[in-house]
Amino acid sequence: MDKAALESYYKANHDRFLEEWKTFLAFESISTDSAYNDKCTECAQWLVTHLEGMGLHAELLETSTKPVVHAYKKGKDGASTVVYYGHYDVQPVDPLDLWDTPPFEPTLRGSRLYARGAQDNKGQTFYFLKALETLLANDALDNTIKIFIEGEEETGSYGITESIPKWKDKLQGDVLMVCDTGAVAKGVPTVTMGLRGINHLEVYMGGIKHDLHSGSHGGMVKNPAMEMARLMATLHDESGRIAVEGYYDDVANVSEQDKELANAGPFTEEGYKEQIGVLPTGGEDGFTAVERKGFRPTIEINGIHSGYGGEGNKTIIPSEAIAKVSCRLVGNQDPQKSLEQLVAHLEKHAPKDLDFEIRHKTIGGPALLVSSTSPVIQKAAAVLDQLSDEKPVYSWEGGSIPVVAELAKVSGAEPLLIGFGLEEDRIHAPNESFDVDQFALGFLYASLMLQAL
Amino acid sequence: MDKAALESYYKANHDRFLEEWKTFLAFESISTDSAYNDKCTECAQWLVTHLEGMGLHAELLETSTKPVVHAYKKGKDGASTVVYYGHYDVQPVDPLDLWDTPPFEPTLRGSRLYARGAQDNKGQTFYFLKALETLLANDALDNTIKIFIEGEEETGSYGITESIPKWKDKLQGDVLMVCDTGAVAKGVPTVTMGLRGINHLEVYMGGIKHDLHSGSHGGMVKNPAMEMARLMATLHDESGRIAVEGYYDDVANVSEQDKELANAGPFTEEGYKEQIGVLPTGGEDGFTAVERKGFRPTIEINGIHSGYGGEGNKTIIPSEAIAKVSCRLVGNQDPQKSLEQLVAHLEKHAPKDLDFEIRHKTIGGPALLVSSTSPVIQKAAAVLDQLSDEKPVYSWEGGSIPVVAELAKVSGAEPLLIGFGLEEDRIHAPNESFDVDQFALGFLYASLMLQAL
Repeated sequence: MDKAALESYYKANHDRFLEEWKTFLAFESISTDSAYNDKCTECAQWLVTHLEGMGLHAELLETSTKPVVHAYKKGKDGASTVVYYGHYDVQPVDPLDLWDTPPFEPTLRGSRLYARGAQDNKGQTFYFLKALETLLANDALDNTIKIFIEGEEETGSYGITESIPKWKDKLQGDVLMVCDTGAVAKGVPTVTMGLRGINHLEVYMGGIKHDLHSGSHGGMVKNPAMEMARLMATLHDESGRIAVEGYYDDVANVSEQDKELANAGPFTEEGYKEQIGVLPTGGEDGFTAVERKGFRPTIEINGIHSGYGGEGNKTIIPSEAIAKVSCRLVGNQDPQKSLEQLVAHLEKHAPKDLDFEIRHKTIGGPALLVSSTSPVIQKAAAVLDQLSDEKPVYSWEGGSIPVVAELAKVSGAEPLLIGFGLEEDRIHAPNESFDVDQFALGFLYASLMLQAL
Repeated sequence: MDKAALESYYKANHDRFLEEWKTFLAFESISTDSAYNDKCTECAQWLVTHLEGMGLHAELLETSTKPVVHAYKKGKDGASTVVYYGHYDVQPVDPLDLWDTPPFEPTLRGSRLYARGAQDNKGQTFYFLKALETLLANDALDNTIKIFIEGEEETGSYGITESIPKWKDKLQGDVLMVCDTGAVAKGVPTVTMGLRGINHLEVYMGGIKHDLHSGSHGGMVKNPAMEMARLMATLHDESGRIAVEGYYDDVANVSEQDKELANAGPFTEEGYKEQIGVLPTGGEDGFTAVERKGFRPTIEINGIHSGYGGEGNKTIIPSEAIAKVSCRLVGNQDPQKSLEQLVAHLEKHAPKDLDFEIRHKTIGGPALLVSSTSPVIQKAAAVLDQLSDEKPVYSWEGGSIPVVAELAKVSGAEPLLIGFGLEEDRIHAPNESFDVDQFALGFLYASLMLQAL
């Protein structure tokens, strides 16, 4: 089906699509609160029925936590296999009184549908499903389709992550489609070219029985607050480069072309300051802000706490200190190996004569890095060119979706992250909504993309 | 009066001394809680009457806060002038249910009198007053006496500190006696040879509008938690020496004799670890722990706070960070000048492109440093030799009593800090008490000392 045929089909079915989308949104599938466990299961079961109605073989895959909706449709021999990942769970809705209409009573106002999950990720998953349905109904799909829609993305993806190795056969594919990202502006197609990996840990120092008088003990005892500051300061050199031995060994070299694409986005230092409050002058020397976010690893303090923090002063030497540290990984950095490198650095520079512990070590997952020369990306570029007069933007994101990186790794499929979310959708906040025009654009993209693969 | 005569007088008057001491202790003179303002004033007025009864001219000196009890007695021409400093206010009493007997119903159990203030400072001030009374009653005192007993020591000494410059003439003297310190063990006379000065301030970094996602912004923005750690780490070099320019310019050289005396105390590294939990291996290389506490300046973090501190992890870049910093000063370090040196260092090393502020700068006061070759200390040594078979211990304390340093400076008097408090007195805690034997020792010391000066 070409663009015109798809637009015509969409127009004819728009009202039904909208009603079904509203039905999907009405399930109170809040994953973080166990009081909604039954609502999550009901939502998953509705999806199974819906996918079967579309002509796929669908089932619930049980995990140790919430079930994953899985659907399968064998394609033509020799056609590629598309794995789709999405999630049916949503964020909590509080504060409820800030919602103009109830979060689980989807309401259309202007061109926007308001509901929790309207965009993230029910809305974006639903335009993919409607695209798939359209191609199946019109006998226009050659590919094998493998769908995985989980119910815990908003609360850690534990069940699916645990199950991925077991489902290795089920997961094998050529392309991993995800529609859970955003566009830089309405009508501007945006390709997410990378996600960073993540690790985190907590550093503890202590051993002093209680807070000490800073006069009676100052200069005698090692001060955990000061020692923690000194330890954290060893993590980077003067130029902002990470000083952990071996940390850059597996950081991929990025092509000049990809750097150019990354820097061609609408980012400006002044715009950043306007939005965030300060200039984007952190990180390593020798890279633009966009490059530092997309292509370079980080080690950040998420929190540091020790001693007195109230009004006025309290002249103590704190008995202990903690620092919470997270790392973003890029390229081929192995999460396990880079965590070990960081731990070795911290242990090497730890102060003597204080208790020292590295705890809550968590391997979050590897990075995803796609090159603009990849055939899948080139096909996507051709599809996106049909959708908009605007040139697509290529965005190497700094964030992490560990389960996507893991799915890509185990499935062997090349990731393709294109989404149509906008900043104004207010995902995770009261009055979440999704622009029906962006939904339609997503439908067109997914329909054309599936055919192009 | 010699020791035997004093002992005999004390024995004859012991019961009366104890009853009067109990009366003094029964006043609920808690300075930190304004609900007790009247009790403080009643206590001060009782002291005035009591001092007049002893034959001194006594009055209340009003300040902007609580009144200071002042008493004066002209001595013989050519005799030295002794200024005495103490305080009639006490710490709060909570938690009240941990007291075995009510804190303001002084109760003798064994050789100890239990009450809030039993030692700190009503008990120690009262043996000085009884010594003075004894000498006056026996016509054995040549010195001019100037007494200042304030009512706010436990809550910042604001009133007296503010008034010291105005009272310059009233304060002029040769020796400043203070009985508000402790002894290292029962029966072991202890001379406090130094107190450190103090400054403090708070460092703030921010400018980021709200906590940021550590993925979307990591490597782009300067992380206030990390920048604060890096700034704090500049305060000392690798050897633990303070790296602030000029900071050691006015640190006095301490004689080998004083170092020996300081190190001759009962301090051991193992004992410290037993008590505190860690070895005393902080501070600068090249000095013993006791020397580092007594003779060297410090810059300590009293608190550092930024970002997430709860369970688990939260991958944010915190929007701001604070650090509370206090400094102990020694020798001739001028508080104003050393604060300026520290501020200049912090400003020089502050990160660019974050908001940066040094706030709540407070000049706490200079150090007190007495040498063992001082004539007053030598006279004290001779007195203490009479009191005990144990050799006196000379202790250079790390803490600060800013008002004492200021009184010494303005009065021109040489400080003489000898007290008989013990660790087991539990000052500031429930069931504070003072050993009546230590009270008697204090009485003997004060009586002999006043005659020796």
